[in-house]
Amino acid sequence: MRVSGRAASEMRAVTLETGVNKHAEGSCLARFGDTHVLCTATVEEKVPFWMRNSGQGWITAEYGMLPRSTGTRTDREAAKGRQSGRTQEIQRLIGRSMRAVTDLARMGEMQVRIDCDVLQADGGTRTAAITGAYVALHQAFQKVAGLGLLAAVPLTDTVAAVSCGIVGGEVVLDMDYAEDSTAETDANFVITGNGGLVEIQATAEKTPFEEALFLALLGAARDGVGRLAALQRQVLGLEA
Amino acid sequence: MRVSGRAASEMRAVTLETGVNKHAEGSCLARFGDTHVLCTATVEEKVPFWMRNSGQGWITAEYGMLPRSTGTRTDREAAKGRQSGRTQEIQRLIGRSMRAVTDLARMGEMQVRIDCDVLQADGGTRTAAITGAYVALHQAFQKVAGLGLLAAVPLTDTVAAVSCGIVGGEVVLDMDYAEDSTAETDANFVITGNGGLVEIQATAEKTPFEEALFLALLGAARDGVGRLAALQRQVLGLEA
Amino acid sequence: MRVSGRAASEMRAVTLETGVNKHAEGSCLARFGDTHVLCTATVEEKVPFWMRNSGQGWITAEYGMLPRSTGTRTDREAAKGRQSGRTQEIQRLIGRSMRAVTDLARMGEMQVRIDCDVLQADGGTRTAAITGAYVALHQAFQKVAGLGLLAAVPLTDTVAAVSCGIVGGEVVLDMDYAEDSTAETDANFVITGNGGLVEIQATAEKTPFEEALFLALLGAARDGVGRLAALQRQVLGLEA
Amino acid sequence: MRVSGRAASEMRAVTLETGVNKHAEGSCLARFGDTHVLCTATVEEKVPFWMRNSGQGWITAEYGMLPRSTGTRTDREAAKGRQSGRTQEIQRLIGRSMRAVTDLARMGEMQVRIDCDVLQADGGTRTAAITGAYVALHQAFQKVAGLGLLAAVPLTDTVAAVSCGIVGGEVVLDMDYAEDSTAETDANFVITGNGGLVEIQATAEKTPFEEALFLALLGAARDGVGRLAALQRQVLGLEA
Amino acid sequence: MRVSGRAASEMRAVTLETGVNKHAEGSCLARFGDTHVLCTATVEEKVPFWMRNSGQGWITAEYGMLPRSTGTRTDREAAKGRQSGRTQEIQRLIGRSMRAVTDLARMGEMQVRIDCDVLQADGGTRTAAITGAYVALHQAFQKVAGLGLLAAVPLTDTVAAVSCGIVGGEVVLDMDYAEDSTAETDANFVITGNGGLVEIQATAEKTPFEEALFLALLGAARDGVGRLAALQRQVLGLEA
Amino acid sequence: MRVSGRAASEMRAVTLETGVNKHAEGSCLARFGDTHVLCTATVEEKVPFWMRNSGQGWITAEYGMLPRSTGTRTDREAAKGRQSGRTQEIQRLIGRSMRAVTDLARMGEMQVRIDCDVLQADGGTRTAAITGAYVALHQAFQKVAGLGLLAAVPLTDTVAAVSCGIVGGEVVLDMDYAEDSTAETDANFVITGNGGLVEIQATAEKTPFEEALFLALLGAARDGVGRLAALQRQVLGLEA
Repeated sequence: MRVSGRAASEMRAVTLETGVNKHAEGSCLARFGDTHVLCTATVEEKVPFWMRNSGQGWITAEYGMLPRSTGTRTDREAAKGRQSGRTQEIQRLIGRSMRAVTDLARMGEMQVRIDCDVLQADGGTRTAAITGAYVALHQAFQKVAGLGLLAAVPLTDTVAAVSCGIVGGEVVLDMDYAEDSTAETDANFVITGNGGLVEIQATAEKTPFEEALFLALLGAARDGVGRLAALQRQVLGLEA
Repeated sequence: MRVSGRAASEMRAVTLETGVNKHAEGSCLARFGDTHVLCTATVEEKVPFWMRNSGQGWITAEYGMLPRSTGTRTDREAAKGRQSGRTQEIQRLIGRSMRAVTDLARMGEMQVRIDCDVLQADGGTRTAAITGAYVALHQAFQKVAGLGLLAAVPLTDTVAAVSCGIVGGEVVLDMDYAEDSTAETDANFVITGNGGLVEIQATAEKTPFEEALFLALLGAARDGVGRLAALQRQVLGLEA
Repeated sequence: MRVSGRAASEMRAVTLETGVNKHAEGSCLARFGDTHVLCTATVEEKVPFWMRNSGQGWITAEYGMLPRSTGTRTDREAAKGRQSGRTQEIQRLIGRSMRAVTDLARMGEMQVRIDCDVLQADGGTRTAAITGAYVALHQAFQKVAGLGLLAAVPLTDTVAAVSCGIVGGEVVLDMDYAEDSTAETDANFVITGNGGLVEIQATAEKTPFEEALFLALLGAARDGVGRLAALQRQVLGLEA
Repeated sequence: MRVSGRAASEMRAVTLETGVNKHAEGSCLARFGDTHVLCTATVEEKVPFWMRNSGQGWITAEYGMLPRSTGTRTDREAAKGRQSGRTQEIQRLIGRSMRAVTDLARMGEMQVRIDCDVLQADGGTRTAAITGAYVALHQAFQKVAGLGLLAAVPLTDTVAAVSCGIVGGEVVLDMDYAEDSTAETDANFVITGNGGLVEIQATAEKTPFEEALFLALLGAARDGVGRLAALQRQVLGLEA
Repeated sequence: MRVSGRAASEMRAVTLETGVNKHAEGSCLARFGDTHVLCTATVEEKVPFWMRNSGQGWITAEYGMLPRSTGTRTDREAAKGRQSGRTQEIQRLIGRSMRAVTDLARMGEMQVRIDCDVLQADGGTRTAAITGAYVALHQAFQKVAGLGLLAAVPLTDTVAAVSCGIVGGEVVLDMDYAEDSTAETDANFVITGNGGLVEIQATAEKTPFEEALFLALLGAARDGVGRLAALQRQVLGLEA
Repeated sequence: MRVSGRAASEMRAVTLETGVNKHAEGSCLARFGDTHVLCTATVEEKVPFWMRNSGQGWITAEYGMLPRSTGTRTDREAAKGRQSGRTQEIQRLIGRSMRAVTDLARMGEMQVRIDCDVLQADGGTRTAAITGAYVALHQAFQKVAGLGLLAAVPLTDTVAAVSCGIVGGEVVLDMDYAEDSTAETDANFVITGNGGLVEIQATAEKTPFEEALFLALLGAARDGVGRLAALQRQVLGLEA
């Protein structure tokens, strides 16, 4: 039994609330338990200069944490004048994950900017961000398609993410902060609705891990992402 | 009649939701119509080095806007590596406003950091921030007092803020973004519950204004702040 | 009687010396007692990119203090790599004040950059800066008009600024540093030659202030600005 | 057959040259074909402030590329004033990899700083960096132990890294730049001499990948790291 | 005959005005023709951390140009967020020049900060800065000695600087901007009152120069510095 | 006899190794004893915007030190976010030195970027950098000429640099770090193959120096540069 009372393969309560920003072309407040991430998708007519005249679109992402989203206050990156390595790592991961399920050629020369801002953190902010970002992205494409600027939503699949780890020798799914900070191994999996692997990041926090254990983590993640994908389809009104 | 359908002296629907952050000592989501500002108060044991051994406390504030809080996306200040002049102006104003109703000597050597982050903007973000920040600050002091670290909440009054402006020659209260961007004169008033003036900022956006008009703005603001103060007392459970 | 020996409504000796920079289109060394601010106006053919093809001009301002303009040396902002919030607040105020008396449409697509650099500080640097900046700006417009690039000086009025405060319960005009740092309330007023209000900034430094006191500050400021406007007209050779 | 003429499971010529810096406590020039990374290990008496009095040591890493290490010149990060997200991601990975095989408690309060600077790049700079960094780190610990400041080298295993990818549908080991930039999937594996997994990073560059393919990548990586570990032991004079 | 009408060995009108800043321990406005540099010396009790407990003092310098000191406006370094290479080169030169005539051991653990700010530029700003900085430094030491904090002024000689160049094949002394920007060779000499060489910087702007020409430049500079040294002694009231 | 065992006029072993970077148009690893500087020349089609349509080319240089090139580790400038004054001074010197022997008009509108990165430092890094940079530059021009993009190598002479100093009252050539840090006077000379002077920088580190001593330094430098020029011609296959 985990400290939270959850079973090893039990995720936290997850909600994906859409329409949470009146300006953005797409938006989603992703809640994984006490981790709350506000995701917006902004459509821009201009692609980065190195893509001009390529006929292709681009998706990029930025990530941030509100200073008191964390248990003790984290310095505001805007005030410090630089984004941390962790922030940059996460926002690059979000962008890659979105591009992996997008047919950039079908987007035309348009850019979508994803913003994921953590309002409250309790572990797993990057996985909640990816899961919510997909919903915001899908809505933004729907809106643009509805305006006749795209023939169809240029997404090839859904994509979601979940963390798994080894805590006290046991594989656990969707770690909260308390688990995350004591885990022997910490892994994040980004997986499509059809089960395609998009990104695997597994890190030995203390001692190297065995392949069998890694495969157990992957199996648990597949279960979790399956449930997230179903929820994404539901809030987006997509057929299963 | 204003574009929004409001009467000249009518404020937008205002709500002050507390307990919106599980980590912070105090928190408040201030909504002035479509302007939503998340305010947290963080208590720290350490004051800035220039106050050490003064026996006094300090309150400071930071302000930020989520990139897509605005109608068109605003660049993320953390990514640009610097806070704009507007951001710094607003966060200095929030800090001064909080200190004006705090008895710093009664705080002891402790610091409260206020963070005001705009989730969605539709004009008047600084006034919503000040109004919400006060609620978060009061809660933080209550929490610290409850722990026996302070004899009492060291606040001398409530404080709230509202914008007024001259739009189409008429004095209007609590401008939304559409009004704000066309106003001839734009003013922000920070006023205590007892009617004491804390900060006045009035700016001729196009042509200089007359003293009589300024006094009309001040009168409208007093009305608005009176209603905000009542709401603050209500959500904080203070007697009127 | 004030520490300086001045009466409550007495300003410091003010001089506005023009022609102090051989390169600038307009220049003025504004001295308010021991506060000395060097103001230059630079005319540029290019407006900021967001104004291109608007047919309008723009005026912007920058402000700085020499490191030893202050009683104890202040760190050089260029060496620190960022301008303080105070600096940005002041330079935005100077820019707004100049634009409030300029008919931007009559300027054509041209930009004037005002630079206000404090050579020596003794309180009231922003009000001296605004007062001197107007003189430099007027001269720059005269020069450009003299070259036939403008039909006339596109200024609608003069503009000047003065500080007032409540020190020891009494309203005093044009505070020096010693007064400024002990004032209960500190206010800056930017007012045109015709008495139009351009900007009001009043701040309770310790305790909230009453409306009557504020009106007394405004009255004192009107007196002071009247004298400054007369001096501006005199050094510019304008008829009264 | 690969463009380079190598077989799918064939690594480039790898050399690990030690003693390449007369100042550093440990140094290694790691060459993976045309990828050359200069690694140094610097021992410092002081740990970061957040580790003081913990009785533990710390290892941190920095990574950089010389501007013309790349086919077209890359802007110098020192001149741009910020390190890219990619740079930060890589240096965090190097640091974690070194710490995963170090018994920090046995280090005592001492810090080792690893610097990995890419002199010439042709794909796989991060894996060459990790492989060379381990050699430099081991030497530095040997030197410190030789001085009697450590009872023994506090390393629990060797660690090395290699990239694998799917190019043209085929699993290839140790990609060069031409392969890397066309790979469908790109993965980096950090593995200990005993086969323990330290870090797995696998990314779908174009389309999601299947689990079977991932396992093939892992298998290829294990082969490669086995050869690298043997080379590390050889240059360090360790028994197999 | 030079464009300015000066003879080849004729300097511009030079004045060294002291007492130009009421706060600084020493100050001097150095005017070399239309080049005006305001120099202040600030005495601080604290030396840089790497000199603590050395029993020695330190002198450091900073340099800046007001944006419109130049013919066309130069961007403000504080706004750009970094000092140019030229600025850093000059301020390092000023600091070295002052230290070369100071007995740091006799200073005790005290630091003097020199600030040289160019109010108006017409060539030779660094040489005017050095010449004025010496005067400000001397006054600061006199003031500190007068307070009994130093036994005597710890200066071993005066120091001043002048530029020389080859313009149109001819050696000219103390170049103005027009000459400086067309010179074939540009040299700056920092020389003590007794003729000791402190710093020589000679640069071929277009084609390499011959040793004989260099010696002619040095000879001209000796003449110029002799006159500057006499002026320094005069304004400081030192016997010749 | 010097600590290193060298005679006063004896240089360290100098080698100039070319072809050390497979990407760069020209490259040279310059070794002056234990000082090793990797120099590359990158040819770009675009000149800086202020040179467009001038018909002329441009050469610019950047300089950096690997963190552990020094005896104790130096902070990485990319991590600190700014280049030191020393770095900027040196890279400006390298650029000027290259331009002094280049006929920019014959280059056409093309830019060469020189990068000099210190792999290991033991004094004299800037002189090794200049000496190696010339070789890399020459090779880059040869390559471009070989492609038919230039009629001929647009260099008018070779250029090299050496340091001299006064150590223990004696003139010594090509100082290593131990000498450099104790020298009474430190000078760097940049001289062409034909003996033309390009740059002289001489600094009194402790006490002013006499002209005769300076001329002795210059004489020693001429000897040293003569030997370096011969070596440059040899590695470039130029006739003497």
